[in-house]
Amino acid sequence: MTDIHLIDAAARRLEGEARRTPLLSSPFLDEIAGRPLFVKAECLQHTGSFKFRGAWNAVSALREAGDVKGVIAFSSGNHAQGVALAAKRQGLPAVIIMPADAPAIKIANTRALGAEVVEFDRATEDRDEIGARLSAERGLALVKPFDMAEVIAGQGTVGLEIAEQAGELGIDSARVLVPCGGGGLTSGIAVALAARAPGFTVHPCEPEDFDDVARSQAAGQRVRNQRLAGSICDAIITPEAGDLTWPLMRDLCGPGQVVTEDEALRAMALAHDRLKIVLEPGSAVALAAALFHAGKLEGDAPLIAVASGGNVDRAMMIRALQA
Amino acid sequence: MTDIHLIDAAARRLEGEARRTPLLSSPFLDEIAGRPLFVKAECLQHTGSFKFRGAWNAVSALREAGDVKGVIAFSSGNHAQGVALAAKRQGLPAVIIMPADAPAIKIANTRALGAEVVEFDRATEDRDEIGARLSAERGLALVKPFDMAEVIAGQGTVGLEIAEQAGELGIDSARVLVPCGGGGLTSGIAVALAARAPGFTVHPCEPEDFDDVARSQAAGQRVRNQRLAGSICDAIITPEAGDLTWPLMRDLCGPGQVVTEDEALRAMALAHDRLKIVLEPGSAVALAAALFHAGKLEGDAPLIAVASGGNVDRAMMIRALQA
Repeated sequence: MTDIHLIDAAARRLEGEARRTPLLSSPFLDEIAGRPLFVKAECLQHTGSFKFRGAWNAVSALREAGDVKGVIAFSSGNHAQGVALAAKRQGLPAVIIMPADAPAIKIANTRALGAEVVEFDRATEDRDEIGARLSAERGLALVKPFDMAEVIAGQGTVGLEIAEQAGELGIDSARVLVPCGGGGLTSGIAVALAARAPGFTVHPCEPEDFDDVARSQAAGQRVRNQRLAGSICDAIITPEAGDLTWPLMRDLCGPGQVVTEDEALRAMALAHDRLKIVLEPGSAVALAAALFHAGKLEGDAPLIAVASGGNVDRAMMIRALQA
Repeated sequence: MTDIHLIDAAARRLEGEARRTPLLSSPFLDEIAGRPLFVKAECLQHTGSFKFRGAWNAVSALREAGDVKGVIAFSSGNHAQGVALAAKRQGLPAVIIMPADAPAIKIANTRALGAEVVEFDRATEDRDEIGARLSAERGLALVKPFDMAEVIAGQGTVGLEIAEQAGELGIDSARVLVPCGGGGLTSGIAVALAARAPGFTVHPCEPEDFDDVARSQAAGQRVRNQRLAGSICDAIITPEAGDLTWPLMRDLCGPGQVVTEDEALRAMALAHDRLKIVLEPGSAVALAAALFHAGKLEGDAPLIAVASGGNVDRAMMIRALQA
């Protein structure tokens, strides 16, 4: 169970390893949102996304707990790079299992960060079977992308930093908007802020048609997405929230916010123009909610949008800038 | 005369006002450069460039020195926005004199930051005469873009931060590459590092055909640029180095580095891909020198490239990403 003590322990492990990313702002964005708006620029984290935090903490905890010979993860995206770099810097081998049809650049990037990439054929092979076999043969420990207490705790350090950085600005009440896929980042931040900034409310943010968390909150029970592909916000598309993350979000978060793909692209372009940071579409949904849907958030408390990652290819950024 | 005491005083004035911008890195960029490479992301500064630092310090010093009723500056670019925001936050009116044919977005941005923009016709009006008249009528003090001790001192705070941030990484010897126009940023950083990180050498960086500082260093005396327009690196194009900045660069800097426009665009694209930051072409010349000309810098000391600003329009960023 991820609680504030686990997050504090993660922060100690991440000290000097993760970047303390800046809280940015622009008077031009404040004007669009209609109230003060801050952006936690986690796209500037090592590997270009917050995933490095959870991966580092999980790998550290596994090492401290005992005899781990290496780690293994299933991912074609930000989690793959986070685990690869965390393992490399801790001197452990990492095996990342990726579909053979994943973009070549993602496979190359993950290899360049020192991981062994094992490709599988989605049509004919069972990735879980491959993972289980490699784990048994080599003594590898699995690092899950979100539904793992130490991963959630690592992501929760973003919340500790938000509490400190907002505190330095004299902010004691805020709406914190977080891009939400499996919910590791959202639930980690919610736990951290419940303890350290109780005047802050966390809202999960999702793209239209993939808003399982917002619908789960409305239904009072976990529901799944109907579709699992076909969104430009691929970094935050998952079947459903996790067994660990869902109860935390249910108990701690305010209503989920939903934005269109077009709004995510416009938020990317405004982040480029006004904050000088590069966001990927999935990472821009929280900023999009802040910019274009602030009216749905009661009161006039400042908004803090987490920009969770910047691993976007050039063609998609060009599309955003031309929108 | 700008010395380390003036820079320390500037740092005290900027405390809590300027952002302490991060020192970023990527293993992918290290590989291209052939040695460790760090980027001081000053594009993340308020107004999108380092200019806010010098402007804030100069406006503060003018206020402390006596009865100033407002400030005035000549600029259509980053200096305009820096002075506008610094004056606004200190409760002083700012008049910015801009050519009437400056891009509408730059005029609008400067106005949005609270400044009064006075437009003049380049063909028929004398901007200095307009400036002198307004200054006399309203008691406005001039804030120069680079050749002013307090402006140089403000920019020098970038050097203090580099010394501290590199020190935390255990770096005691480095080549520091700085985009150089009039030389305010370059000379300020050189003064700061001579005092606080004497193992660091500062190199001014310029685009091809506008390399007056590199040629001045080679000639042992200040020379001018032949052309004054026609570069995509417009942010760092000036007729010549300043009366104050040139002697500092002459005495403190290593040889100037020169890059092509194409290299600056490629550096912008790599900064997008690997660091998730937005650079303007003039701001990318130092990163370009680090990535593509490291062989010209003797030894294997780590490289630190200053990314001085990110105020680029969408069309130019698209051009860089398509290159």
